[in-house]
Amino acid sequence: MGVQNIGIIGMGVMGSNLALNIADHAYTVSVYNHTPRSTENFVRDHAHANIIPYYDLQQFIASLEKPRKIMLMIVAGEPVDQMIARILPLTDAGDIIIDGGNSFFKDTQRRTQVCREKGVFFVGMGISGGETGARRGPAVMVGGESTAYEKIRHIYEAVAAKADDDKPCCAHVGPDGAGHFVKMVHNGIEYADMQLIAEAYLLLKEMGGYTHAELADIFHDWNTGELHSYLIGITADVLAETEDGGSVLSMIADRAEQKGTGRWTGIEALAEGVDVSLIIAACNARVLSQVAGRRRAQIVFPRPERGQVKAADFVEAVRKSLYTAKIVAYAQGFALYQKASQTYGWQLDYRRIAEIFRAGCIIQAKFLDTISTAYAEDAQVENLLFHPFFTGKIKEGEHSLRQVAALGLAAGIPVPAMAGALTYLDAYAGPCVGANLIQGLRDYFGAHTFRRTDKEGNFHHVWREHYKR
Amino acid sequence: MGVQNIGIIGMGVMGSNLALNIADHAYTVSVYNHTPRSTENFVRDHAHANIIPYYDLQQFIASLEKPRKIMLMIVAGEPVDQMIARILPLTDAGDIIIDGGNSFFKDTQRRTQVCREKGVFFVGMGISGGETGARRGPAVMVGGESTAYEKIRHIYEAVAAKADDDKPCCAHVGPDGAGHFVKMVHNGIEYADMQLIAEAYLLLKEMGGYTHAELADIFHDWNTGELHSYLIGITADVLAETEDGGSVLSMIADRAEQKGTGRWTGIEALAEGVDVSLIIAACNARVLSQVAGRRRAQIVFPRPERGQVKAADFVEAVRKSLYTAKIVAYAQGFALYQKASQTYGWQLDYRRIAEIFRAGCIIQAKFLDTISTAYAEDAQVENLLFHPFFTGKIKEGEHSLRQVAALGLAAGIPVPAMAGALTYLDAYAGPCVGANLIQGLRDYFGAHTFRRTDKEGNFHHVWREHYKR
Repeated sequence: MGVQNIGIIGMGVMGSNLALNIADHAYTVSVYNHTPRSTENFVRDHAHANIIPYYDLQQFIASLEKPRKIMLMIVAGEPVDQMIARILPLTDAGDIIIDGGNSFFKDTQRRTQVCREKGVFFVGMGISGGETGARRGPAVMVGGESTAYEKIRHIYEAVAAKADDDKPCCAHVGPDGAGHFVKMVHNGIEYADMQLIAEAYLLLKEMGGYTHAELADIFHDWNTGELHSYLIGITADVLAETEDGGSVLSMIADRAEQKGTGRWTGIEALAEGVDVSLIIAACNARVLSQVAGRRRAQIVFPRPERGQVKAADFVEAVRKSLYTAKIVAYAQGFALYQKASQTYGWQLDYRRIAEIFRAGCIIQAKFLDTISTAYAEDAQVENLLFHPFFTGKIKEGEHSLRQVAALGLAAGIPVPAMAGALTYLDAYAGPCVGANLIQGLRDYFGAHTFRRTDKEGNFHHVWREHYKR
Repeated sequence: MGVQNIGIIGMGVMGSNLALNIADHAYTVSVYNHTPRSTENFVRDHAHANIIPYYDLQQFIASLEKPRKIMLMIVAGEPVDQMIARILPLTDAGDIIIDGGNSFFKDTQRRTQVCREKGVFFVGMGISGGETGARRGPAVMVGGESTAYEKIRHIYEAVAAKADDDKPCCAHVGPDGAGHFVKMVHNGIEYADMQLIAEAYLLLKEMGGYTHAELADIFHDWNTGELHSYLIGITADVLAETEDGGSVLSMIADRAEQKGTGRWTGIEALAEGVDVSLIIAACNARVLSQVAGRRRAQIVFPRPERGQVKAADFVEAVRKSLYTAKIVAYAQGFALYQKASQTYGWQLDYRRIAEIFRAGCIIQAKFLDTISTAYAEDAQVENLLFHPFFTGKIKEGEHSLRQVAALGLAAGIPVPAMAGALTYLDAYAGPCVGANLIQGLRDYFGAHTFRRTDKEGNFHHVWREHYKR
């Protein structure tokens, strides 16, 4: 009979740090890795009374108390299916397999079915916070059956980050793929957040003429106000970092990579018919930063002359633009939650999602308190933009965003996310967006019909040729 | 023994018009529909010596000469799989099933395999041009094995539209799903084209203060120049149309629908890592035009005051912006062809694709001659923007696009596609796009490493905290 509280498979950075975190909270942990060397290295470097290494999968499983809690911290994709296939025959009904990787939520839905057929619970768990989060307290988004959550929550709520009100940043957000979906969109929002920060940086550097050291102070200053967040904080650190007297940031190549969750968010949003233009702009900005021919384009298409606007009010206008566009990015992300919750019947608790993002994860910010409050006051709000607080902030910042985005466009500084935030607002709130013409054209060439402003129903018009072509 | 040259299943608008078109070209056509009524109505309304109706699938198949050419003009999705399952047992090795609907190209790849196992050829065929195109000459993008194409080309090249040089707008573009992929991206480009037209319309209407009648003349005038295209032509017609003395366009509700191919294009581009921002902006613009809360947003967020700029040079600046942004939209679409051709090993002939778009289809335009020429001169060009002709046009129009997009943003007129074209150019050609900061942040919180500007390799920096948080 096994006695260990939980088992973790996968001794990579995330798995080993999470094992230590759990062990620190007085739970006993069995660990296993398909290559023994990683396990050996881990226990050599991090001896811990509560952690016992296993080099045989059968013994590892047998070491666990029932119902067994078996957590996978391995590479998403095929390896997860393979590991499930190896584990399932060794488990009993009622055991719980937890996938803590960045798995695609539809894979999680499928795997839930596979495990259910054997009476085993499958928990798709989104974990955010990187290495430090895993070690010191991540944000944890749990999918799967609530029966399963009740059996594991004491562990994960103990190890999760705590928000300012001491609530753990861990919650059961919904069945099957809901946990991984919430994590996926979290990452998508993170992409948009970072892209907006990059645009603010670029505007201030190129048009404001500030040095990295000056910008570090500016971002640090921003971090004391409403923009306060983990990402703004580390942006100040990255800007301030020097090596042999030179800025480290200046030595970093202007190429950003991506792993896939941002892109997945964009794909799901397109499929759901939800506009997440800022997330997609962020993905595309990374794509373009790596595209072949960038150097050639720089030579062929020199950018326009850039006027300098070094002035405190420009800095403040950029700050307001960043904050305003950030609201739009989050409103878009949460609109996707709302739509997907309907599509998949998840009944996501948006308030609780915002709450668990308050600490531990990459997008952690005080800002999320406000989103949580908004949903507490009106769980059915059509769009976060309609919450009075955000409405007020948009009205306050829209003019700055408009000025700054137009300045950026005029100066040839790529501000796709800021411009995207503005065109989203303008389309959302515009009395006419030209869709009448598009639908008219569709009716002209494809008899797709249209609605009218003056009566109900669908109409087709027999269009005439007024001009000779 | 059957004698009819080809059989068409599906007597909807597209199927019946295509049957008439083929019959007009002296081919004998068997027609069938799963509900007999449609077939009855069709032959009653359009008696044609070359068309014979069948009300029994077996007899229909038996009526065809071998190798049989069986064309499906039915609703994409499940119905296609169901019909293939019904037909396959009735066919012989060497027969050819042609799917002329808007099927998803991955379904076509799968169906090609299913049919191949029975020795039957499956041809996924993209057909563009709407009702009129099907009747008078569509553009035809053929996928599948070239052996199959050789057996059907005489029919489709006869019925296809002819370009100014009399070449048929019909070509075998590649194996399995290539034909439907080419059609899908064609539709995506069509979305972007229409969105740009809608933005130009909106700018001129809102800022220029032009009436629909005046705008009709403006678009007609544009259609005599480098913007000459089917869509600009019918835009003039739609703007000019009146009913009881009032503008028809003014009565059309400001809501645009979409069926899916534009969205699919955006999804595939995200998956392939190709930036098709204008196509995605066009999809999202249609989404936003239908979103709940639009009226509420109009009240909550009044748009800024709009200055009037009625002047001939504003019209010309908008025209140049439209043309410049259109080049970017096509460059993005063709970049997706180039990437997908690699991914799927299709060896797409970009020159021929542009050629068959010159007539028959919705995006037909003289413009496509130039794209064809560009690929004829350099089949490996990284991006169409680098073809001297387009480089010159971009340089000529970029300033106008910059002015107009900035004006639109400042005035609160939603110009997501025009702004997207500009930020694409600015990111492509920008010496720094802020990706260095993004990659620095990724290394900070996730140890994702970065490349350096001064030496080769991947580096991780041990970042310090410079500021107290």
